[in-house]
Amino acid sequence: MVTRKEDFSRWYLDTIQQADLMDYSPVRGCMIFKPNGYELWEHIQEAFNKRFKEEGVRNAYFPMLIPENFFQKEKDHIEGFSPELPWVTEAAGEKLEERLALRPTSETVIGDAYSRWIQSYRDLPLEINQWANVFRWEKRTLPFLRTSEFLWQEGHTVHATAEEAEARTQRMLDIYAEEVEGLLAIPVFKGEKTPSERFAGAERTYSIEAMMQDTKCVQAGTSHYMGTKFAEAFDIRYLNPDNEHVLAYTTSWGVSTRLIGAMIMVHSDDQGLVLPPRMAPQQVVMIPVGPWQKNPEIMETLEKINAELRQRGFRTVIDDSDNRPGFKFNEWELRGAPLRIEIGPRDLENQKAIIKMRDLEDKEEVALDQVVERVVEALDEMQVRLLEKARAFNEANIYTNIDTLEELEAHIKSKRAEGEYPGWVLAGWDGTEETEALIKERTGFTTRNIPFEGMVEPKSTCIVTGKPSKVTVWLARAY
Amino acid sequence: MVTRKEDFSRWYLDTIQQADLMDYSPVRGCMIFKPNGYELWEHIQEAFNKRFKEEGVRNAYFPMLIPENFFQKEKDHIEGFSPELPWVTEAAGEKLEERLALRPTSETVIGDAYSRWIQSYRDLPLEINQWANVFRWEKRTLPFLRTSEFLWQEGHTVHATAEEAEARTQRMLDIYAEEVEGLLAIPVFKGEKTPSERFAGAERTYSIEAMMQDTKCVQAGTSHYMGTKFAEAFDIRYLNPDNEHVLAYTTSWGVSTRLIGAMIMVHSDDQGLVLPPRMAPQQVVMIPVGPWQKNPEIMETLEKINAELRQRGFRTVIDDSDNRPGFKFNEWELRGAPLRIEIGPRDLENQKAIIKMRDLEDKEEVALDQVVERVVEALDEMQVRLLEKARAFNEANIYTNIDTLEELEAHIKSKRAEGEYPGWVLAGWDGTEETEALIKERTGFTTRNIPFEGMVEPKSTCIVTGKPSKVTVWLARAY
Repeated sequence: MVTRKEDFSRWYLDTIQQADLMDYSPVRGCMIFKPNGYELWEHIQEAFNKRFKEEGVRNAYFPMLIPENFFQKEKDHIEGFSPELPWVTEAAGEKLEERLALRPTSETVIGDAYSRWIQSYRDLPLEINQWANVFRWEKRTLPFLRTSEFLWQEGHTVHATAEEAEARTQRMLDIYAEEVEGLLAIPVFKGEKTPSERFAGAERTYSIEAMMQDTKCVQAGTSHYMGTKFAEAFDIRYLNPDNEHVLAYTTSWGVSTRLIGAMIMVHSDDQGLVLPPRMAPQQVVMIPVGPWQKNPEIMETLEKINAELRQRGFRTVIDDSDNRPGFKFNEWELRGAPLRIEIGPRDLENQKAIIKMRDLEDKEEVALDQVVERVVEALDEMQVRLLEKARAFNEANIYTNIDTLEELEAHIKSKRAEGEYPGWVLAGWDGTEETEALIKERTGFTTRNIPFEGMVEPKSTCIVTGKPSKVTVWLARAY
Repeated sequence: MVTRKEDFSRWYLDTIQQADLMDYSPVRGCMIFKPNGYELWEHIQEAFNKRFKEEGVRNAYFPMLIPENFFQKEKDHIEGFSPELPWVTEAAGEKLEERLALRPTSETVIGDAYSRWIQSYRDLPLEINQWANVFRWEKRTLPFLRTSEFLWQEGHTVHATAEEAEARTQRMLDIYAEEVEGLLAIPVFKGEKTPSERFAGAERTYSIEAMMQDTKCVQAGTSHYMGTKFAEAFDIRYLNPDNEHVLAYTTSWGVSTRLIGAMIMVHSDDQGLVLPPRMAPQQVVMIPVGPWQKNPEIMETLEKINAELRQRGFRTVIDDSDNRPGFKFNEWELRGAPLRIEIGPRDLENQKAIIKMRDLEDKEEVALDQVVERVVEALDEMQVRLLEKARAFNEANIYTNIDTLEELEAHIKSKRAEGEYPGWVLAGWDGTEETEALIKERTGFTTRNIPFEGMVEPKSTCIVTGKPSKVTVWLARAY
């Protein structure tokens, strides 16, 4: 395997292959989620589902095929998505009268349904989520991060007032941030996208953005406030208490399987995958060492620990294959198992076990009768440690004192000369599309999002014009 | 609402609409699973996932789009599915070089992957399941039971020997039968499909079949033994311990959202939906009666019961809307809530609550301090009662003494004259396609499956020819 420094892209592809997470498929731009990769998505589904349901949001399922005329109803929406749509034009041996798109997102088909379902203010709020496959025919693809078919959840809500819709939009962004930090151990940057980066048809798009180890940015989740734009397009109206038929306010919000790619790029190292304990398919791997086949007490001890851990709900495996211990250690490191327990004849004699955490160099000796307690604690510690480590990495790669485009260019150049990554830059910006385009053209950096008030020290001058800035924005290269 | 006797089809459509389970969509043959309908699928997913994982089967996800050349590799498979395939022919503004089918099932794309993943006998068995949307462009559709897009799980396994593959095929059929009976309270008939009813490309197809209240049959789940047919088509070979490259044996098995349709048709009544307690989105509905708004102790009592039930993991709701109790009773009956608790001022005075089960006429009075225990018990009782009731219905509608096609025709005619349903017929059959076709042509009855040995009293003569029968088979009209 190459190291991260040698070739980050190659390292990423090697890491996911070695960890047996995915496979390419003969279908252009589509990947196979192998069991170890799909289970990561199952853990995300479980945690997010729990949060959604606590919010009173229920799951449903809408048709995948969307008639072409639905897209025509919201101008920005069709403009934004039409370049990447695959179309069904034939079925059962006949040409269709109207083309059907494979959904890139479901605002249209859901908007059409909501317009039928909502009659009065008593039907509001209406809050539904869907777990589904979606399609965006991408030119350049990258496993997990950008594929022609991917898996996601999309929440779609309808409210009586702008305030309620805005509150739902922000609340979901908060939930995303909490789960991405708590479950995936990825620290995120919350803020609002610039107008040019908004979801096609949204009035405001909020995002959580995350820094990878090559300091490139991954947009990890978005939450959109639509105002009445989709309500107008699909005639989503309700009878208010004054008996008037008025437009409703809608939101949508989603996270996708790209979260898995982000998690891998944030935590893994040159020895392969590193997984936060809450996400790992195998949280604890037990490996007998020394001449354990001649000493049945070793396996008995491991099986006893295994039974206790399983009873407490941990995902565990005993690797009693015939391979050498060193081979097994390496294999489970490649797969990102957070914690390894080794027991050999001498350990048994001393009534000890050896614990090795995936992200630490040193091994730890633990008394046999305290192994289970220590495992529980050590996994919690690692979950927190990964988040803190990523946070420290972010802080070390954030630049807040770059005030002109020339300084930014020089910064990028000098970092490249040192073989370092350019990090993220907090910049003042005048809010115009022209300067935003110029930043991208000159540096490859794009606006990531505009941090909410109080989250950063505002920058007073625009990085391009030097005149007073309108907002302060994160700039970075992005996946 | 019409009654079942008046118009069973209309009754079914009314029942699912009134229960707010689904909506039609403007996309031909595709339905919307509304939250109350989708939650039924979530309960199926949870229960089946648990069983699959206990079997060592893991979930994965394969691309939805299948290149046309994949279908060409297995002759029977393409013949069976090509009449119902929708095709993507354009994407991102360009015509594709090769058409891509929306998956009707994934043997081909999974077979292609397995041929890469399997090298040696050490890689076997390989056992993977997928939860996915699939497409079959049906001419006549019926919500839940036959839709152009539906949701399902498909398990795909590979084995070193025919015996192991056969055992997996049968084991999954048993698991299907256990869960469909235990969770959905639908008694099923296990057996093998006749050659003409086999899955396209299978060597043997086993099924579970279920009788609806109109005595029509729903195929509720299938499990296929492929032998080496797909292994040959996709070159799934492994190096055996003798260092020979040999073909592997494969299986596949699936259940779909049609289970929901079957469950509704088996249990519901002229007052609307009836749900087995384990499946119900709202298991317990609490309704305050009398002048409860003036008597806050009523709501307090209900909230206390509610908290206790929720803590025990039950899905509950207190309906404190302003509607009249009678209106609420009716609404929750339409929605199939299994158990209702009523408390009014006089009940409170007597320290009693009223319990009404959805499937029983009489109400029951229970001391307040025993309500929770009684609810737990009563829900269990109802789960069993529904299965037993359906079993008794099946037994009353099975005919084993019809020995000729003329007798079958007369039977159907006389039942129709009485306004009764014709039931199922256990018949001897000579095993030829000609007689199978003749039965269908003359009576509309089709072969459902051939019960396993020992499950029924064999019939010695063929219902068509009168000559010795080869097998005994269930005949019925089917959805």
